[in-house]
Amino acid sequence: MRSRRLVLGVTGIRSEYDIMSSVFRAISNHPQLELQLVVTGAHLADAFGSTVDEVRADGFVVAEEIESLLNGDQASFRVKGLAIQLQGLVQTVARIKPDILLVLGDREEAMTTALVGAYMNIPVAHIAGGDRVVGNVDDQIRHAVTKLAHLHFVTNDESAERIIRLGEQSFRVFNVGNPGLDRLLEVPDLSCAELSARLGFFIEEGEPFLMLIQHVISTEIEQAYEQMKTTLEAVREFGIKTVLSYPNSDAGGQQMIRAIREYESLPFLHTAKNIPRLEFVNLMRRASCLIGNSSAGILEAPLLKLPVINIGNRQCGRLHAENVEFVPHDKNRIIEALRRAISDQTYRKSVAVCSNPYGDGKSSSRIADLLATTPLDNRLLIKDITY
Amino acid sequence: MRSRRLVLGVTGIRSEYDIMSSVFRAISNHPQLELQLVVTGAHLADAFGSTVDEVRADGFVVAEEIESLLNGDQASFRVKGLAIQLQGLVQTVARIKPDILLVLGDREEAMTTALVGAYMNIPVAHIAGGDRVVGNVDDQIRHAVTKLAHLHFVTNDESAERIIRLGEQSFRVFNVGNPGLDRLLEVPDLSCAELSARLGFFIEEGEPFLMLIQHVISTEIEQAYEQMKTTLEAVREFGIKTVLSYPNSDAGGQQMIRAIREYESLPFLHTAKNIPRLEFVNLMRRASCLIGNSSAGILEAPLLKLPVINIGNRQCGRLHAENVEFVPHDKNRIIEALRRAISDQTYRKSVAVCSNPYGDGKSSSRIADLLATTPLDNRLLIKDITY
Amino acid sequence: MRSRRLVLGVTGIRSEYDIMSSVFRAISNHPQLELQLVVTGAHLADAFGSTVDEVRADGFVVAEEIESLLNGDQASFRVKGLAIQLQGLVQTVARIKPDILLVLGDREEAMTTALVGAYMNIPVAHIAGGDRVVGNVDDQIRHAVTKLAHLHFVTNDESAERIIRLGEQSFRVFNVGNPGLDRLLEVPDLSCAELSARLGFFIEEGEPFLMLIQHVISTEIEQAYEQMKTTLEAVREFGIKTVLSYPNSDAGGQQMIRAIREYESLPFLHTAKNIPRLEFVNLMRRASCLIGNSSAGILEAPLLKLPVINIGNRQCGRLHAENVEFVPHDKNRIIEALRRAISDQTYRKSVAVCSNPYGDGKSSSRIADLLATTPLDNRLLIKDITY
Amino acid sequence: MRSRRLVLGVTGIRSEYDIMSSVFRAISNHPQLELQLVVTGAHLADAFGSTVDEVRADGFVVAEEIESLLNGDQASFRVKGLAIQLQGLVQTVARIKPDILLVLGDREEAMTTALVGAYMNIPVAHIAGGDRVVGNVDDQIRHAVTKLAHLHFVTNDESAERIIRLGEQSFRVFNVGNPGLDRLLEVPDLSCAELSARLGFFIEEGEPFLMLIQHVISTEIEQAYEQMKTTLEAVREFGIKTVLSYPNSDAGGQQMIRAIREYESLPFLHTAKNIPRLEFVNLMRRASCLIGNSSAGILEAPLLKLPVINIGNRQCGRLHAENVEFVPHDKNRIIEALRRAISDQTYRKSVAVCSNPYGDGKSSSRIADLLATTPLDNRLLIKDITY
Repeated sequence: MRSRRLVLGVTGIRSEYDIMSSVFRAISNHPQLELQLVVTGAHLADAFGSTVDEVRADGFVVAEEIESLLNGDQASFRVKGLAIQLQGLVQTVARIKPDILLVLGDREEAMTTALVGAYMNIPVAHIAGGDRVVGNVDDQIRHAVTKLAHLHFVTNDESAERIIRLGEQSFRVFNVGNPGLDRLLEVPDLSCAELSARLGFFIEEGEPFLMLIQHVISTEIEQAYEQMKTTLEAVREFGIKTVLSYPNSDAGGQQMIRAIREYESLPFLHTAKNIPRLEFVNLMRRASCLIGNSSAGILEAPLLKLPVINIGNRQCGRLHAENVEFVPHDKNRIIEALRRAISDQTYRKSVAVCSNPYGDGKSSSRIADLLATTPLDNRLLIKDITY
Repeated sequence: MRSRRLVLGVTGIRSEYDIMSSVFRAISNHPQLELQLVVTGAHLADAFGSTVDEVRADGFVVAEEIESLLNGDQASFRVKGLAIQLQGLVQTVARIKPDILLVLGDREEAMTTALVGAYMNIPVAHIAGGDRVVGNVDDQIRHAVTKLAHLHFVTNDESAERIIRLGEQSFRVFNVGNPGLDRLLEVPDLSCAELSARLGFFIEEGEPFLMLIQHVISTEIEQAYEQMKTTLEAVREFGIKTVLSYPNSDAGGQQMIRAIREYESLPFLHTAKNIPRLEFVNLMRRASCLIGNSSAGILEAPLLKLPVINIGNRQCGRLHAENVEFVPHDKNRIIEALRRAISDQTYRKSVAVCSNPYGDGKSSSRIADLLATTPLDNRLLIKDITY
Repeated sequence: MRSRRLVLGVTGIRSEYDIMSSVFRAISNHPQLELQLVVTGAHLADAFGSTVDEVRADGFVVAEEIESLLNGDQASFRVKGLAIQLQGLVQTVARIKPDILLVLGDREEAMTTALVGAYMNIPVAHIAGGDRVVGNVDDQIRHAVTKLAHLHFVTNDESAERIIRLGEQSFRVFNVGNPGLDRLLEVPDLSCAELSARLGFFIEEGEPFLMLIQHVISTEIEQAYEQMKTTLEAVREFGIKTVLSYPNSDAGGQQMIRAIREYESLPFLHTAKNIPRLEFVNLMRRASCLIGNSSAGILEAPLLKLPVINIGNRQCGRLHAENVEFVPHDKNRIIEALRRAISDQTYRKSVAVCSNPYGDGKSSSRIADLLATTPLDNRLLIKDITY
Repeated sequence: MRSRRLVLGVTGIRSEYDIMSSVFRAISNHPQLELQLVVTGAHLADAFGSTVDEVRADGFVVAEEIESLLNGDQASFRVKGLAIQLQGLVQTVARIKPDILLVLGDREEAMTTALVGAYMNIPVAHIAGGDRVVGNVDDQIRHAVTKLAHLHFVTNDESAERIIRLGEQSFRVFNVGNPGLDRLLEVPDLSCAELSARLGFFIEEGEPFLMLIQHVISTEIEQAYEQMKTTLEAVREFGIKTVLSYPNSDAGGQQMIRAIREYESLPFLHTAKNIPRLEFVNLMRRASCLIGNSSAGILEAPLLKLPVINIGNRQCGRLHAENVEFVPHDKNRIIEALRRAISDQTYRKSVAVCSNPYGDGKSSSRIADLLATTPLDNRLLIKDITY
């Protein structure tokens, strides 16, 4: 018998780790819990910045590194990577025999973790289930993971209600708020000069500029190149400095990168494979507008009162504050929205008072407490649906 | 462009293939469809009778054999086998590029097929979703597969309603009845003498005898040995000839087999690793009672007016006809139920007029027609939930 | 920096572990070495007795269990299992970062270990290379492993010479003798009554009896059933009590088991899936003759002065003492050889004075000393061939 | 029975396919042979140019694509990719059941193909065994593959002799010459203007320029960045236009690319991820010197009378013509060698009359004839060593 419950967290990519690190910290610091991490997927890929080093630097125990990201762009490469990751994770879990498995979201990591827990009879705590983002395989994965997981730590009331309507027993569902917001407010401020120096891209104090983050939608892979081009054309025509962060490692990502490369030499554009969290948050604090389809626009931007232009179908239909405007992949519509977001003072005032439906910055300690106190018994392990 | 839609069916074990073979036949015979099969899992394991040969003998095109069943009994071996199977299936689907993927049930095959379809943007037709069998990882898998699949061919009204309440769009859901019943009525009759000869176990015309099929429940693996022993003790004490079919390849199955081996030399008991369908159906037609926890008792027995004693938690709570009695793992309770099922004429008369909520024997052609005519467009591919 | 060198041993099957356990013990006890084990393959398969429990009971640190044995009989199942094992072993070695990898023989484990060491730049010590057993894929594997490994601990002079002629640098080659013999002499004596009781098979003091161990040859898989039948027929006709140990998990093994099952009910025959070492050695000490094609006949029997009849091509051409007679798969030839081995006193006297070319029982400490003292530098890591 | 022998070729990377394509062509055109290809590894990786499209464009039957290249730079990523590739290849070979497997060289493909053939009892023809390139895991792999393969098509007399000394039976060994040279002479000539246009880099008629191709050595991964920098510094100081082709996907390759990126903006340097064969050969015909450590310098350059400066340990000790000079990773030594190769007329004259020990341009048809006529019997399948 262990004196403390051993939680095995699984993390697969920078964007998700940014949300999870405060949760991992809260677990590590909890007197009744012990934390180990499995680091996999894009974390171990040089092409995505080998962010495993950042995880170690944060002081967490890395129980295993599981390489799983294939170098490819075929329709099959994500699910083949999932198979490889699953095979590795089974081995890790059989060795460590954790008391609880913990994972966030709707990527391959969420599915492999949930499958291992379900088959090996180990409770799975899943963060951020119940969200609804139509138009992406991730949406199917997220709900399937909900059906496999034993504890649902959701980030907002809509998701809590949705999960219960999907047949989950209500004792399993907790609205803890979005833990990604916990770190947001604690990130130190950088001066504009220091931020510029760290980026290698000059931004004057008070100068308006954009952040651009656009990911691929799995059902629109073939349009990925054109979608990215349309956005970049709009930004060029609007004529404003822009900091672009590379897309995720999804199929089609390579096509977007091809489009980006065509603009990389233009002076208005600064691109980065991977913007560290410190710089990222400071950029958000100073940016005039965030455009693309990043979930940061939905989740974090309202806390910082940052206007967001969400382009295309990704994030469509999600619960959001007043700071987000949705536009199609149309150059003129994007330019028009940029004008409103940057120059329309009435609009900017309405954004300045928006409130965030995704949490209050205390999610991590809530999660840790629940992991420490939930009875790990057959009621938890044997799932029933309510219909 | 293919002139006919190519359906790739995935089959993993004898018990599932018995249900699916009439569906596969209907697809093969349909003028607008072409069928290829992936054969995997227990079909390729000598320990389970290498039933792939039977699939070939039935005349189906085997597009790939994917060995995936590990020789083990650890908690991890099923999910590790799932990973191996998934890695192989990705390769097959990338090569064949089928128009539709087709799979039944809640075993590893269902999950791997659904994952491949979801990530590779190929519609997945799933048979027998929406059932509710609490107490087993298979239940979680079944509902998770529902969240990944695009077409739901359910076997009864309860399941149809449950799937819709789970948030699936109703245009995806079809109650086709249970295709496993289609073949049941077509199986030729054997004389009692021929049946005895084929089994290598003498049963006299009119002589009462039992069929015994008991599988492991994944949450009760450690009781597997005792559960099987309790049943065998009850049967021995009741004193009646019994034909026993080996349990599935689930974790714990080996423990049940150990219990069976202790009784194998006793004259009342005939055991078989794998009873061919012809003999199996004729045994059901002639048996006095079916005991254990086989789904055949729930699904097929009512059509044959066969009394069933279901022992333990497997199948508990499932929609069933009047022919099924549920008892716990208790020797005396089993004996008592045996007496009622075999000697209580009032009870036997009530069974003789029961009706089957699982279908009318025409499911296969219904499924084939739906596979041929459902539009394979974005409405089908892009899933939304209804909440 | 570690204070002691960390040796990671890889073990995959009972027969090999019987040889290696004294080496593992010597390493564990060595002041400059630390030992951890990877347990894989047949050790984890219920069908082969789950011998991992025995490894743990011996007190060794099991760093990882890697399930890899597929339940199958196809030509592909061994090499697919090799792939699965390799994928798991990479993960383990990347985690543990041992100073030296250690493995014996010519099975899948030897190949996966050697590949991991070669690619990950970790020295591989290989035991029992250089032997020559024509007619089996294992022979090719053994020599290929020699080409990948950095240290060759061979068991006899012929093998040492052969490895050097194969182009290996002589500073890498050490004839340490066969470590399998180290334990042989230390095994406690059992009385005939106790041995009988443990086996569940009565052997009278002084009563002549046979041991029979026959494995499949990979190029003669299709004859496996007939070969086993021929041997069993000869033994039955000769009319002598026989203790049979089941074949290995190679392709074709299932066919042999089918043949064995046809004789299992006969009183002269006692069969066992897995005879523990204590019983095994005491059987060898008391048996009149060992027949089949087990390597124990070549390696260990001479130390115990036990006559051996080696049937068929396996072991053909190996260095052997005067105690071994080679015969083909021919019933009459086997019977004739049995007569000579059991009744021909001249022959038995010549066996009684044979000497063992495979070692003196001190191999294990020799290996441990070499592992502790060999410089782990680039001279060791960068292999050259001598031609 | 097939009327023609089915040869399954396995190809994993552009550099190897350039050598093999003429062999594949000769097999396709042979009346007694049929060819199918497995395309795997770097061929399917966007980061390396997705050269599978080129294979299809050449008209070959692609029986399977097997993604296997992980996106990583750890010591483990090559051997983990090998495991993934092996698992896929087993499935392909079990499906296709070829008469012969064919592969070239010493990369992961060679090992997986040889393992599959050895375990599944299918003859493996291996091209370019017996070479000796110390200092790289590839050397160990090459000789291990020799121990597993059944037919050795070597490219020069030294390798033939070496393979025989390594214990291979001489009837298995054929010096066919290097098939990579077959295509060399048939590549059409481009004018200097057209070549410039295709490269996007201007080279004047008669203008001296360099080709630079430098790969990582697996035992010197940590020096990869510095090695590349040293070479680029030497070239910059020498002051001559240079066309650089990116390194292979080996561990450390990413480090080299980092060094290249620091020079990419300089006008003397043109870089390309992947230079198509037509341009590559025309560059070799016109270049003043080839530097780095590419095998093209050893194998092809002599036929084109091109001076070569081989830097560092890769290729060291290989049979070579008078056109190659070996220097260490030392800027001044490289500059000195460049001066000799480009300006020393006596040296350039000696290169102009060198002869190629690696073949005459007719290797492919020789290989095809041998594949068509070698008896595929037990003599071929059951390997013995000659010692």
